[in-house]
Amino acid sequence: MDDVEIRNRTGSLHFIRFPTSEMSNFLSLAKSKGMADLVTAVCATGGGAYKFEKDFMHELNMKLAKFDELDTLIKGVLFSELRNTAECYYFHNARNIRHSEKKSYDFSKPYPFILVNVGSGVSLLAVYGPNNYKRISGTSLGGGTFLGLCCLLTGFKDIYGGDYARFGLPGDLVASSYGQMHNKDKQGKVSREDLANATLVTITNNIGSIARMCALNEKIDKVVFVGNFLRVNSISMKLLAYAMDFWSEGSLKALFLNHEGYFGALGCLLQFNNSDIAEYIR
Amino acid sequence: MDDVEIRNRTGSLHFIRFPTSEMSNFLSLAKSKGMADLVTAVCATGGGAYKFEKDFMHELNMKLAKFDELDTLIKGVLFSELRNTAECYYFHNARNIRHSEKKSYDFSKPYPFILVNVGSGVSLLAVYGPNNYKRISGTSLGGGTFLGLCCLLTGFKDIYGGDYARFGLPGDLVASSYGQMHNKDKQGKVSREDLANATLVTITNNIGSIARMCALNEKIDKVVFVGNFLRVNSISMKLLAYAMDFWSEGSLKALFLNHEGYFGALGCLLQFNNSDIAEYIR
Repeated sequence: MDDVEIRNRTGSLHFIRFPTSEMSNFLSLAKSKGMADLVTAVCATGGGAYKFEKDFMHELNMKLAKFDELDTLIKGVLFSELRNTAECYYFHNARNIRHSEKKSYDFSKPYPFILVNVGSGVSLLAVYGPNNYKRISGTSLGGGTFLGLCCLLTGFKDIYGGDYARFGLPGDLVASSYGQMHNKDKQGKVSREDLANATLVTITNNIGSIARMCALNEKIDKVVFVGNFLRVNSISMKLLAYAMDFWSEGSLKALFLNHEGYFGALGCLLQFNNSDIAEYIR
Repeated sequence: MDDVEIRNRTGSLHFIRFPTSEMSNFLSLAKSKGMADLVTAVCATGGGAYKFEKDFMHELNMKLAKFDELDTLIKGVLFSELRNTAECYYFHNARNIRHSEKKSYDFSKPYPFILVNVGSGVSLLAVYGPNNYKRISGTSLGGGTFLGLCCLLTGFKDIYGGDYARFGLPGDLVASSYGQMHNKDKQGKVSREDLANATLVTITNNIGSIARMCALNEKIDKVVFVGNFLRVNSISMKLLAYAMDFWSEGSLKALFLNHEGYFGALGCLLQFNNSDIAEYIR
């Protein structure tokens, strides 16, 4: 993200990611590069901020500055949308999944909106203003479920970086996910790709269904989906766009953001040192 | 169900069940016993009423009298509750899953209520009167998903009749179902029982979460769970009772019915020959 000004400094923001299972490698690298000589604290949010606090102290002699997960998420979303006009998009022609296309969306008047954060698990927030939001629902069936089930079902040990795009797209309505899989004849006929696809579609549809109910409940027509589950995962995004459009008969809009999984990190940066961040968000 | 009067005949209703994968055995038995000499039509509902229509005609020369799945479900529920005062119950002390207990519930003033039918898939209805209801939501993650996923995950080919009760009960809140299962070290440490339990808890919690949102949406405080998924499945029922009570802070009541999976069949019987069933339900 270029030409970003934060606390009178202008520059580019770069985003990288790694699974927390690689944290010990990160700590070794940071130690060898003398990271603690440059900074004394690292901003962190989410469960990892608590889980790895001791390791940062012991290995690097650095503090973790911990921030609230949902606060930072929303601050990050609002900041990035304001500073990066190409941030928000939707899928044009959402009912035709194979041919739906990304289009820019003007999110300059954001409120109210539903924010669905799909990480390992899923949180759903209703956002009425920069400091006015509530967590309205959640589900434990998220990206972690997809990865875990996929590995269990397909026998692959690790599918990070796997090529999601090779899985086909669903044609028909599903009455019962995996519903035939107790039948041993049918079990023999499914491929690993079928199982991975079924898992992706099942998890995605469930999230879409819950998001739609929450939007109805709150009488809000914009639903913004973020989180690392959506990274390089156009199948899920297109499915979510389709599901929102179809089940709401066009009255709900599924929106997506280009920096889908980094808003918590960005929000941490903005909140660091308790600086007044009101100026950064509308 | 004893001392039931239907069209001036009084007797006991007996309920039996078998999976539709056994339908050819049922047809053979019916043929050998001369079932077609006694009756000319069998009442049926659900997808099977369409799927097996030809087989009944070819094998037995019998018609299937097909009835709407949701109509018969509701008629069956209302009839059985009216004729069997011990039909409806709840779990007392729902927050303490290990010690919660079945207690009779007076369902004589039923309306409005949410009806959650957990079969292979799940349908959620808002019921305002005997002929006034709407389907408000549904999910494909139901009993079929549990059976299918369990068989895929545990390697068992068929777990019908499996002893669900041996699976343990959950203690902690789950952030991401199966969330650690992409980690090969952790994958090696889980047993088949753990995986079956995780599947049961995941499916059940998801159903509970959707039911709660629907109840909020419709401003209805009674949620009746039925369907064959709940048969000999006190773990799921207690989990649902716990989830409803906990997440609603006591304002939602989870109710259950003793003939959980037979209301569609009962509703079919009542509707057969287009008889006026108004007298059978309140």
